[in-house]
Amino acid sequence: MEEDVFHHILPIQLRFNDVDKFGHVNNSVYFSFYDLGKTEYFASVCRHVDWTKTAIVVVHIEADFIKQIFSSDQIAVQTAVCEIGTKSFHLLQQVVDTHSGEVKCVCRSVMVTFDLERHESIPLEEEWVEEICAYEGRDLRKKR
Amino acid sequence: MEEDVFHHILPIQLRFNDVDKFGHVNNSVYFSFYDLGKTEYFASVCRHVDWTKTAIVVVHIEADFIKQIFSSDQIAVQTAVCEIGTKSFHLLQQVVDTHSGEVKCVCRSVMVTFDLERHESIPLEEEWVEEICAYEGRDLRKKR
Amino acid sequence: MEEDVFHHILPIQLRFNDVDKFGHVNNSVYFSFYDLGKTEYFASVCRHVDWTKTAIVVVHIEADFIKQIFSSDQIAVQTAVCEIGTKSFHLLQQVVDTHSGEVKCVCRSVMVTFDLERHESIPLEEEWVEEICAYEGRDLRKKR
Amino acid sequence: MEEDVFHHILPIQLRFNDVDKFGHVNNSVYFSFYDLGKTEYFASVCRHVDWTKTAIVVVHIEADFIKQIFSSDQIAVQTAVCEIGTKSFHLLQQVVDTHSGEVKCVCRSVMVTFDLERHESIPLEEEWVEEICAYEGRDLRKKR
Repeated sequence: MEEDVFHHILPIQLRFNDVDKFGHVNNSVYFSFYDLGKTEYFASVCRHVDWTKTAIVVVHIEADFIKQIFSSDQIAVQTAVCEIGTKSFHLLQQVVDTHSGEVKCVCRSVMVTFDLERHESIPLEEEWVEEICAYEGRDLRKKR
Repeated sequence: MEEDVFHHILPIQLRFNDVDKFGHVNNSVYFSFYDLGKTEYFASVCRHVDWTKTAIVVVHIEADFIKQIFSSDQIAVQTAVCEIGTKSFHLLQQVVDTHSGEVKCVCRSVMVTFDLERHESIPLEEEWVEEICAYEGRDLRKKR
Repeated sequence: MEEDVFHHILPIQLRFNDVDKFGHVNNSVYFSFYDLGKTEYFASVCRHVDWTKTAIVVVHIEADFIKQIFSSDQIAVQTAVCEIGTKSFHLLQQVVDTHSGEVKCVCRSVMVTFDLERHESIPLEEEWVEEICAYEGRDLRKKR
Repeated sequence: MEEDVFHHILPIQLRFNDVDKFGHVNNSVYFSFYDLGKTEYFASVCRHVDWTKTAIVVVHIEADFIKQIFSSDQIAVQTAVCEIGTKSFHLLQQVVDTHSGEVKCVCRSVMVTFDLERHESIPLEEEWVEEICAYEGRDLRKKR
């Protein structure tokens, strides 16, 4: 998947304590950037969802740390849904340097939708799927 | 790899703000548990290393989130080195419930050793490798 | 108030990322230690309170940072209620080095009890007040 | 001191995990906002300082929590130096809602400059003091 497939980009404000004693952003902090990217993505793309009743929960996440991030770097997180199954969907995210365009970290995750009242995972609603496919500009439904 | 291969276990003290608005431990926080587990592992196993000059840096990490963690849970992180290459090594970690024994999350990561003064990755020292293999009770060197 | 008035002490597990680029624990992290100390205090002292309906909320906090905390330090947080009014109560807390006994930071806070369903502050229940006074071994009610 | 004395304002990007299980921003997180405000303040106002050798360290901090912050709020942190002594200086900061203008939290802190190589507090440099007074538009030196 190439960088230009990303329609969603969110600039990230680094915090003083994101940087650990090695002088670079600590690896665990990247996942709060990815959290922020996907929260903003779904809030803006899936407008009909009641987020007090439904949550999106990570079941698998993997990340490749390519370049260190320093406190003076200007960074952003790019987010795209890249595949939608019946019970889960796949997300591709990148942390990039907005000055140099350099990719700092690539993250792939598998998410499920979760009913906060019944405490169980639920199928993706069709309306939601359509909004995401419309936003991404292509049919992301997994072929069977 | 079975659970009983873990020789290293570190109880984790949950903090109030580890729990997000969904009432469970936020996914990004798990990685600070894994950080803590591996920091303690290498500090206790590799005693001759000067940690002011050498760092261990994550290049790849992946995690499967199996069960939610709630603020009342008693948890611990288990850590094992499971393979050692010439330039990197693999870590297997688990967050477990110490009451029920239930596995909450499994994490695999690839680490490199990093020279903090020259800012570059360095090969694993033989003494270090031997200490780890002795601790794990088996030869972890990758067969070529 | 002297150190020996503290009946409640909670050892704190430092995390890798508590330490900032200056090599000491970042000031904002101390407040998560105080949070942990008070959460544990009220959970163990006020056993009849339903914490899903009632919260304790900070309205004022002040801290004196006396000594730096380094990642190798063994620390604990001491917590005492030192005064109870009709609508609020005062807490005194300290972060101490458990090896040297050295006081690292002193924190005073004013707390109110808060009804999570009606979203408003509520008076302290008499049963709660009695449990705290019994635990502290003296009458903490503000004289009018 | 009135709100219009603030010349420095920094919008804050909230993160998913800033919000605790009560649904509002956790009190310990506010201090990372204040950290961010002051870091940005000194980086932009005191341009001749070598921040790899000199740090600004908090010795006292106090905050009044006036209104809760929710994840949908647009907030910013306002920062002003309000008094400069020979060895320390005072900071006034506020977290405000940028839509309503509402003040969420007021924070006063006492800071010292710290030599990172000699590990001791150092007097404020005259050049630094002048830059701050020029920025604030008034003489902040404590009268003796």
